[in-house]
Amino acid sequence: MHSTGSGVEPGSSAPVTLHDVARRAGVSVATVSYVANGRTNVRLSDATRRRVQAAIDELGYRPNALAKNLVKGTSTFIGLVADGVATTPFAGQIIHGAQDEAWRHGFVLLVANTDADLQVEREAIEMMLEHQVRGILYSTWYHREISVPASLLQAEMVLVNCYAPGSAARAVVPDEVQGGRTATEQLLRQGHRRVAFVNTTWESPARTGRLAGYRQALAAAGIEFDPTLVIDAEPNQEGGYGAYERLSRLDATGVFCHNDRVAMGLYDAVRVRGLKVPADLAIVGFDNQEVIAAHLRPPLTTVQLPHYELGATSVRVLLGLDPAPPGEITRLACPLVLRESAGADG
Amino acid sequence: MHSTGSGVEPGSSAPVTLHDVARRAGVSVATVSYVANGRTNVRLSDATRRRVQAAIDELGYRPNALAKNLVKGTSTFIGLVADGVATTPFAGQIIHGAQDEAWRHGFVLLVANTDADLQVEREAIEMMLEHQVRGILYSTWYHREISVPASLLQAEMVLVNCYAPGSAARAVVPDEVQGGRTATEQLLRQGHRRVAFVNTTWESPARTGRLAGYRQALAAAGIEFDPTLVIDAEPNQEGGYGAYERLSRLDATGVFCHNDRVAMGLYDAVRVRGLKVPADLAIVGFDNQEVIAAHLRPPLTTVQLPHYELGATSVRVLLGLDPAPPGEITRLACPLVLRESAGADG
Repeated sequence: MHSTGSGVEPGSSAPVTLHDVARRAGVSVATVSYVANGRTNVRLSDATRRRVQAAIDELGYRPNALAKNLVKGTSTFIGLVADGVATTPFAGQIIHGAQDEAWRHGFVLLVANTDADLQVEREAIEMMLEHQVRGILYSTWYHREISVPASLLQAEMVLVNCYAPGSAARAVVPDEVQGGRTATEQLLRQGHRRVAFVNTTWESPARTGRLAGYRQALAAAGIEFDPTLVIDAEPNQEGGYGAYERLSRLDATGVFCHNDRVAMGLYDAVRVRGLKVPADLAIVGFDNQEVIAAHLRPPLTTVQLPHYELGATSVRVLLGLDPAPPGEITRLACPLVLRESAGADG
Repeated sequence: MHSTGSGVEPGSSAPVTLHDVARRAGVSVATVSYVANGRTNVRLSDATRRRVQAAIDELGYRPNALAKNLVKGTSTFIGLVADGVATTPFAGQIIHGAQDEAWRHGFVLLVANTDADLQVEREAIEMMLEHQVRGILYSTWYHREISVPASLLQAEMVLVNCYAPGSAARAVVPDEVQGGRTATEQLLRQGHRRVAFVNTTWESPARTGRLAGYRQALAAAGIEFDPTLVIDAEPNQEGGYGAYERLSRLDATGVFCHNDRVAMGLYDAVRVRGLKVPADLAIVGFDNQEVIAAHLRPPLTTVQLPHYELGATSVRVLLGLDPAPPGEITRLACPLVLRESAGADG
């Protein structure tokens, strides 16, 4: 894009930064910023302005989108209020996607983790409004229905991984129905006709949505829905392990598990009985928790929760790049991640 | 602390916020902020000032630490540059600890995830300096030695989960040696005399530190170090599974695994041979990855990497609350998390 001057490491093709210019001109980064952006209300000597401008010209420096926003005086922040960044590996991906997309458009992400503490949440939102954020992303770590916090009502906002029925709030959530259908279809494609579903005991859009998807897949394959094939269990390893006893009485040859942790527990239950996955029981998970799914024996075929995309898409909705009318719920696809626990063909 | 007025939900004991005052006075949050903080250089009518002040008095509003910083014109931001918030459940805890501690002192955390991309890192640091952060926390997702990025040199900064030997940068890292000692001591306390160590193939402070701790524990128990008891493996489930073959020839009754993922793979290897943890082989992990360690069968005794504390302590060092001289490396304890894979007594 432009030549690199001596302020940049030799051989580097990295864009020239404020730092490069500051080093070359022997001034502070702030001074360069003032000059580069034509601020005249800052007291600088003409000699300094000339020295900085010379360094800018020599190095070919161009302010980035963020710097331009800063200078125009428009907001440079997008807020993200999350209820549990700490307790789950998921929230990190939402933050990551939101940040990448925000940066792409010249915004900085202000992140606040509330641990679902309402007072902290209130203060976080207030802080963000005080910093005149362009808008606020309000994110939950698991997909659920919420009431929009009162303090959010005066902000531009998008709900992420949650939704508020009957409100004007736009939301971006995973498509649980499609995900459940996709998981079940993989088992059907492998020839399984009695496919069980270990669902969760937690009332949630994941519970109802994945069940609906399971039923859709069966219906499309001409298989009658048999409610005895649906078992509820705690959505963790212990739940999956404990579900085997009931499962074993159902003559199922394939099982769709509510999440990867349930699948991991079920693996253990299968193994202690001397049986094998997928030969004796084909298993599909949900979530694609990398630290688990890819490293089970055999590696787990699962359906991915699109956390990165939830974050990125919510920024696009907030900025009007993916226009959504008030109250719109945008559902993002949950793709199949094919490994070895439920046959080899996608 | 103060009475709650009609701007707060009935029965709520939550502190009164800017929003409550704004709603009561029928003005914007910004207007309340100006009045509450005695800003006289903002054009507001006397009537508005009086109305806001009346609402402040009625509701008993007091500006929080953050609002005070905002008004004093001092920095309200602490930057956190992390190289991989997305790819690990660990970084989330560093962010969480840093944020909680920052808030406690009236600062907001600006988080930037760089995915170890040097250009993104450079831009992130530049952005933070443009926002006049109080200082920058520079964090890596695994504990390692680094060179301080040039763009960081002009900032107040603390390295988190990494360190730069020979530099003046202060660092906060986990005490790998103590952690390795603690893990090994648990096995020795259970009567094991031949304790193996499945270390990692990755050169890192964790590799050398945990080995040193293992040797210290043996020495303190009067057991001679036997290098054949130390095996290197990839630090994941596959590595642990594959290590069993070599381990089984060593007559070890207890094994300290470099991390929980290695332990998880080793569990599988033990199980497929019809053996049991801990009766046939006692196992201690490292990391305390919640989604794994607490949910293995049996639950895994392990040593906790203090990620939350790394984040919180680094903020305290940055703010001078935990004074540290230039170049100081603060090492934080890695506590034992006692579950069932290596005997019951701590």
